Amino acid sequence: MIKGVFAPIATPFKADDGTIYWDKLKFNLDKWSKSGLSGLVVLGSNGEFQLLSRQEKEELIGFVRKNTPKELKVIAGTGCESTQETIDLSKKAAELGADAVLVVTPNYYKACYTPAALKAHFEALADACPIPVMLYNMPGNTGINMASDLVAELSQHPNIVGEKDSSGNIVQVAETISKTPPEFTTFAGSASWLLPALCVGAKGGTVALANVLPEQCVAIYDNFQAGRLEEARKIQLNVLEINKAVTARWGPAGLKAAMDLVGYYGGPPRLPIQPLAPAQIEELKAILKRGKFI
Amino acid sequence: MIKGVFAPIATPFKADDGTIYWDKLKFNLDKWSKSGLSGLVVLGSNGEFQLLSRQEKEELIGFVRKNTPKELKVIAGTGCESTQETIDLSKKAAELGADAVLVVTPNYYKACYTPAALKAHFEALADACPIPVMLYNMPGNTGINMASDLVAELSQHPNIVGEKDSSGNIVQVAETISKTPPEFTTFAGSASWLLPALCVGAKGGTVALANVLPEQCVAIYDNFQAGRLEEARKIQLNVLEINKAVTARWGPAGLKAAMDLVGYYGGPPRLPIQPLAPAQIEELKAILKRGKFI
Amino acid sequence: MIKGVFAPIATPFKADDGTIYWDKLKFNLDKWSKSGLSGLVVLGSNGEFQLLSRQEKEELIGFVRKNTPKELKVIAGTGCESTQETIDLSKKAAELGADAVLVVTPNYYKACYTPAALKAHFEALADACPIPVMLYNMPGNTGINMASDLVAELSQHPNIVGEKDSSGNIVQVAETISKTPPEFTTFAGSASWLLPALCVGAKGGTVALANVLPEQCVAIYDNFQAGRLEEARKIQLNVLEINKAVTARWGPAGLKAAMDLVGYYGGPPRLPIQPLAPAQIEELKAILKRGKFI
Amino acid sequence: MIKGVFAPIATPFKADDGTIYWDKLKFNLDKWSKSGLSGLVVLGSNGEFQLLSRQEKEELIGFVRKNTPKELKVIAGTGCESTQETIDLSKKAAELGADAVLVVTPNYYKACYTPAALKAHFEALADACPIPVMLYNMPGNTGINMASDLVAELSQHPNIVGEKDSSGNIVQVAETISKTPPEFTTFAGSASWLLPALCVGAKGGTVALANVLPEQCVAIYDNFQAGRLEEARKIQLNVLEINKAVTARWGPAGLKAAMDLVGYYGGPPRLPIQPLAPAQIEELKAILKRGKFI
Repeated sequence: MIKGVFAPIATPFKADDGTIYWDKLKFNLDKWSKSGLSGLVVLGSNGEFQLLSRQEKEELIGFVRKNTPKELKVIAGTGCESTQETIDLSKKAAELGADAVLVVTPNYYKACYTPAALKAHFEALADACPIPVMLYNMPGNTGINMASDLVAELSQHPNIVGEKDSSGNIVQVAETISKTPPEFTTFAGSASWLLPALCVGAKGGTVALANVLPEQCVAIYDNFQAGRLEEARKIQLNVLEINKAVTARWGPAGLKAAMDLVGYYGGPPRLPIQPLAPAQIEELKAILKRGKFI
Repeated sequence: MIKGVFAPIATPFKADDGTIYWDKLKFNLDKWSKSGLSGLVVLGSNGEFQLLSRQEKEELIGFVRKNTPKELKVIAGTGCESTQETIDLSKKAAELGADAVLVVTPNYYKACYTPAALKAHFEALADACPIPVMLYNMPGNTGINMASDLVAELSQHPNIVGEKDSSGNIVQVAETISKTPPEFTTFAGSASWLLPALCVGAKGGTVALANVLPEQCVAIYDNFQAGRLEEARKIQLNVLEINKAVTARWGPAGLKAAMDLVGYYGGPPRLPIQPLAPAQIEELKAILKRGKFI
Repeated sequence: MIKGVFAPIATPFKADDGTIYWDKLKFNLDKWSKSGLSGLVVLGSNGEFQLLSRQEKEELIGFVRKNTPKELKVIAGTGCESTQETIDLSKKAAELGADAVLVVTPNYYKACYTPAALKAHFEALADACPIPVMLYNMPGNTGINMASDLVAELSQHPNIVGEKDSSGNIVQVAETISKTPPEFTTFAGSASWLLPALCVGAKGGTVALANVLPEQCVAIYDNFQAGRLEEARKIQLNVLEINKAVTARWGPAGLKAAMDLVGYYGGPPRLPIQPLAPAQIEELKAILKRGKFI
Repeated sequence: MIKGVFAPIATPFKADDGTIYWDKLKFNLDKWSKSGLSGLVVLGSNGEFQLLSRQEKEELIGFVRKNTPKELKVIAGTGCESTQETIDLSKKAAELGADAVLVVTPNYYKACYTPAALKAHFEALADACPIPVMLYNMPGNTGINMASDLVAELSQHPNIVGEKDSSGNIVQVAETISKTPPEFTTFAGSASWLLPALCVGAKGGTVALANVLPEQCVAIYDNFQAGRLEEARKIQLNVLEINKAVTARWGPAGLKAAMDLVGYYGGPPRLPIQPLAPAQIEELKAILKRGKFI
């Protein structure tokens, strides 16, 4: 079963030529692996998945799996716009050793992506994919929401084992939990509501902030599991501001800048994502200081 | 301090002439008063506030306060579109014995209701109002959202003692709690996320469902306070479907139909709100049965 | 038949005590009456309708009708949240001499205001109202949109004679025109798209900008009617910036400030609408200069 | 200068194996070429661009250019999420003979795609691209809108020659026209508002409906150019219903079904887009009959 806190890892690029910076990725992987995380997601939204070539994607899956201790799960983001391409990349991810795939909804043809179309898409994938499938609901980026009824239907498929819900809609998360089997994994998609999600029965989260402050995210989870709700709440409230900075406010550009500030390698995002301006980095630093993270 | 579970009570109308049905209101008040609720909100959204005349509003405040035991707080909904009218009605509510006022944001002139304008509005009210003021954020109906920064600023006013947030945005609720003084009351605005709100520090809720199933709502609160999180969660998940039926899905029409089904007097809503059709009432009955509420 | 350009007139208030400034209203009415407008709407959104008392509303209807030449139609905005109150005020408007009523959709109980509920609301009104009814669709302020199918159904009622559509959705306007009888009046709700609305068959508009620059609005209409499309377009493009300033950007506060700058009496808006700050007034002045209006 | 009516052409697939059906594409190209269209857009949204591989894209550009008479312009849709990939594909399109590129905004990382980031993206492309660049604003699919100020700034670049605006916001279209040089081409992005766009100064449109009913779309344009506004309006109003069916309502699935019904080859869309169900095809047929198109 998939549970605990996962980091949807950033993809480091070289400042000079924009190619993947493998040494720095190795450096980051080593640090994350010792932070208490249960696993990593390679090629998530925060990994700038949509800005990578097919070849880069495959290399990244293989590299991350090879350089991450076996006790951490590695999940690969393989959602493409077309059903066939999603299946192809998911099969490849399985070959490359991924433990599961995390598959974002297709999103361009919004008028066509009815619940029935999404159901067919994910079922075709789940039928063909040799490793377990997790659904990925990310309406803030995609403009498509998977309601709890659709997720409940898909949870009946033996190879669909969970969902990462990044909607921020805690009622939808609770509904999903109440409508899916006990072994189905519902994950919070952001650190800002990890604790309330756990309170209604989520099994953990895949949260951008775990790139920057994995120990804080894990501490929310561990304290909650140990029944120390008050302690979990204190940490939860304290990460709200930094979490917003690295997600809704500045996206991957903010995430990478924060990584640089706390001792990971962040580096530049890939265009058209612009790096933070110097004044924004100062603001980010102030936010990290207010939280006593640096 | 305001805390616990409050019901924003429905206003009963006679089926024949549409006037307020005082006897049935008394009947309902007697039942609610024995259900464990900490208080009532008269003239909330669920009380069809926007469909009542000024005279009806005043009579309702007086009647509810007079017919509710003193150990239950009575809060009056007094938010009008104009600042002056809001102040006038709030003063009247104080005269009529209300313990506090709950004041929804004005909402028609959206382009004009900047944070600065809302701040001036609520501060003018809080200065003039002889009883404590609670803010009421209800973006689903108003199209206006009060972000946590605005609420934090307003919480500095000595006569603004809390906020009912009906946004459903659990992160905003957590932010508000982290930015306001410990004695400031943040209330969940819907039963569907009462437990997660408590988990991040809310002091309770004012929830439509408490009209229909007050004991269930109180049980979520009491179990949480007693550290029985698992029990609270079970009830929380079980009320999701009925809660949606009496709020987002069917509004006050659904709420009143559900009240009729569980032994309260619901009766017809006021036009232009249409009563539920027979088929919808059957569906509502099925939902109540699934939850084992009837 | 209702056609041409109408001004939804501002309600002038005294700066000292906030009451209606009748002398200034008379002054404005005299100017508007000589500007080529086909009529006036009293108690529209731009008249701060939602911030007026019932007594003020009645006085305004009577005063405006009495002080406006008979060749200009006077339409009264009478939409209230409750069906009964809307009917009552509409009857009163008829008594006071209004030529028609313009009735905004109710808007607070969004979950309840289905097309069927809105249809029942407007039909009940149209049955009871002694003067013709125009529908008023204003989703930007109300969060409720009346699709063309609903308007088409309502246009079958003999006492529903037109619609002011302020959605800005030109396709919806065209659909409405194609689905309603030839004598039904579809009005553009903003000067910024008056010309394209005329091009698809609108009979005119009720536009905030006609408070400030009635001659410009009338010139778009007159040039179009005379087949001088190029001239109409030139004026249309030239009013875009000032129109946005007095509507979407600054609402009634911007409208009144602009009125002050061009020789009408604008005066202060009623709270919670804040007057423009000095820097905003300077910006507004610059916009008026760029358009060569001052 | 780019002007007139363009069809953003559908990509035909074989029913058996889902590959591009070149013979049918040739058949369609021959018909479109004789319909009065000024040009074609290959790889637009309606061409299921997002569901094609890089190789398919290149083959399509070459094939369409080779099989379209020189008097029709061929514009290639080359917008990818990353700046570099967009530049690469645009250069390739130039090599393959495209007359211009039409470049949709990137759209996944919405928090990062500020006006400044979009400006840098399009300027980098325009600098590198050997053929003229047209901007493509498609908020319905992308969730990103390019306001008129941004387009005005970009129109200063010598290699950015126009914009297809599919927002449906006629005021924004008018603003763009008023802020860009006279030789800049603003195109309506949908047939449902082609006439109003022409009325405010658009130079034509790239409209999905031109796949199905090119002669109708051209007739709106030609009648308008000839000063026959009444005739243009009649056709405009008559295409509203079918246009909605092949765009907002059913997307590329509806478009292809309609093509099949009027004598083009439509065929199946690519998954996850589902083909229309039989009942939907019947409804589509009824719509075409109501418009007297079949």
